[in-house]
Amino acid sequence: MEQPSKSLFAVIMAGGVGTRFWPHSRQAKPKQFLDVFGSGTMIQATLGRLAGLVAPENCIVVTNEQYKTLTQLQLPVLPMENILGEPMSRNTAPCIAWAAAELYKKDPNATMIVLPADHLIANVRRFQQVLRTAITQAQEPGSLVTIGIEPTHPEIGYGYIQFHTETYEADEDGLVACPVKAFAEKPDIETAERFLATGEFLWNSGMFVWRADTILSEIQKHMPDLAEAFQPIRDTQSVSNEMVFQAFKSSPKISVDYGIMEPAEKVFVVPGNFGWNDVGDWRAVYDLNDKDQHGNALRGKVVCEDATRNLVFAGDKLVAVVGMHDTIVVNTPDALLVCHKEATQKVKNVVEFLNSNGLEAHT
Amino acid sequence: MEQPSKSLFAVIMAGGVGTRFWPHSRQAKPKQFLDVFGSGTMIQATLGRLAGLVAPENCIVVTNEQYKTLTQLQLPVLPMENILGEPMSRNTAPCIAWAAAELYKKDPNATMIVLPADHLIANVRRFQQVLRTAITQAQEPGSLVTIGIEPTHPEIGYGYIQFHTETYEADEDGLVACPVKAFAEKPDIETAERFLATGEFLWNSGMFVWRADTILSEIQKHMPDLAEAFQPIRDTQSVSNEMVFQAFKSSPKISVDYGIMEPAEKVFVVPGNFGWNDVGDWRAVYDLNDKDQHGNALRGKVVCEDATRNLVFAGDKLVAVVGMHDTIVVNTPDALLVCHKEATQKVKNVVEFLNSNGLEAHT
Repeated sequence: MEQPSKSLFAVIMAGGVGTRFWPHSRQAKPKQFLDVFGSGTMIQATLGRLAGLVAPENCIVVTNEQYKTLTQLQLPVLPMENILGEPMSRNTAPCIAWAAAELYKKDPNATMIVLPADHLIANVRRFQQVLRTAITQAQEPGSLVTIGIEPTHPEIGYGYIQFHTETYEADEDGLVACPVKAFAEKPDIETAERFLATGEFLWNSGMFVWRADTILSEIQKHMPDLAEAFQPIRDTQSVSNEMVFQAFKSSPKISVDYGIMEPAEKVFVVPGNFGWNDVGDWRAVYDLNDKDQHGNALRGKVVCEDATRNLVFAGDKLVAVVGMHDTIVVNTPDALLVCHKEATQKVKNVVEFLNSNGLEAHT
Repeated sequence: MEQPSKSLFAVIMAGGVGTRFWPHSRQAKPKQFLDVFGSGTMIQATLGRLAGLVAPENCIVVTNEQYKTLTQLQLPVLPMENILGEPMSRNTAPCIAWAAAELYKKDPNATMIVLPADHLIANVRRFQQVLRTAITQAQEPGSLVTIGIEPTHPEIGYGYIQFHTETYEADEDGLVACPVKAFAEKPDIETAERFLATGEFLWNSGMFVWRADTILSEIQKHMPDLAEAFQPIRDTQSVSNEMVFQAFKSSPKISVDYGIMEPAEKVFVVPGNFGWNDVGDWRAVYDLNDKDQHGNALRGKVVCEDATRNLVFAGDKLVAVVGMHDTIVVNTPDALLVCHKEATQKVKNVVEFLNSNGLEAHT
């Protein structure tokens, strides 16, 4: 295995609150800090799959201030100063602006891999190959590289990336960075089907690779307000909490996709196929978990009677599931969710209801 | 209101373990001791609806020995000596043989109303009218009287009573005790439909009225072994626990319907219509509970999102029900049931499984 490059860094974005995993995820413990597959938490897996590519001391986590301790506990290998705590949620553009500023100060030659903390990837070897192809492309001056996922079905829950298929030749791993034609928002089902039929569309995974200097100058170009907000942080080695607070306070609330990638000119995508899933809801947790012969994914003390294709997290109780099919049951110390597998997207409505009805203690 | 007759007694049979109400009902607290409608427990309701007809000191509860304390706690109005504790379960015939023996010693002129402890009756006034008609018929020498329920649908969960419709005239309340033609076991659906079409069949409610001397001589005639087992108890005023134990130990395990009513000759039934339900499973609890505008019957902290026709007992948790319909959710301190409304009859299988797999602590 080749040595990790000293100038290669990873930025793990772990600021999400993940209301769709209520009641297992909470304000106090969102999705990325959960172990929903029985094999470690999602943020641990995210760091783990960089092994051999990026040294732990070159990995940075950007999370909400309130999750810094949780992050340290779950990732003890990370130096404490590598955990950046956001004072407020401002979507991904400010998060990336901050990380880029810090990495550029550390190493003006820095290349950053940007990864969400809450995705699942089955084929880590292939994933690293895709990252290497992206890293190579990112060395070309001005290149912003994103990772696209070869779609397996007309999903309406993801954004899409349209790319030029014909122009470049694949590398030794059969991979290629292709110029991006356009980004598309989450489509309706007819549009998604049309996308798939063309063969020109990939799922937008929210994973990026670029040089710190490149993204900083693209921010300057397309989001000068954001560049200005973080200028004090770029200009000093001793960043105070107050400076971070002011930077975020004056930042727009916008995603890097919308604020930078769409207007930028030299954007590439590496189409990848490495068993990716963004584990967006309980249904995905069911799909990705091991099942017994009746299609049930069970955790804890569960008794099934005429029950198929269910996901049950029993928590501290004995749970009996009788005559139920395609149901999600999640038991936690103070709250219980019973949800049909086709309705998992509505779980966030429950959290909204709790928050607006004096039941925040349960969120 | 007329005075209760001094020779009129009630025997409340409360020995059942009610596995179909798991996890709310337990070995330690079966159905008759539960409050599933928010208006007192079922045994309290059973005693309560005798008010004005039978004096409390003339009411006897026969229950399992282990539930004597629970019975005393729930029915403080009952003299302690009126609670008979069965040393083992032997179905209803031995239970009735014991109660009849005790009542006959107390009052050779005794008439007994025999009632299960776990039924629901909506119209108590009508119920008492039906009992009065039955009591009158029971004074005729040798008469065994049962209460039949006018069926509202071809139920396959009940036994049926076929009766002669034409012979007798109704009393002032429009009620009549009719000679019974035959008892029928729980039918299949085609048979049940045929029963209903004839107009000659009633549901067997398991409620009876007879004189103590009549039932004792019928036991002697049709179940001499049972009569012999309880002879020592009949012969003494100071019954010891050992005598009761021996009587039950040598008793057959048989219902009074099968052992006495079927072979007996002078059997009558009073057809009644007083909103009866034997509350046989969680589905019945749903049917009989108050519902909100979405058809949900909810107890405790419950949040519904796209949820209709559910029964939820939240217990100590906040329960969110999302995209679920026709589902029973019952949360108790150590166990949780999630069951489709059409599968409630299978809950007893869960209890059997728990008992045979070292999980008795949860039953």
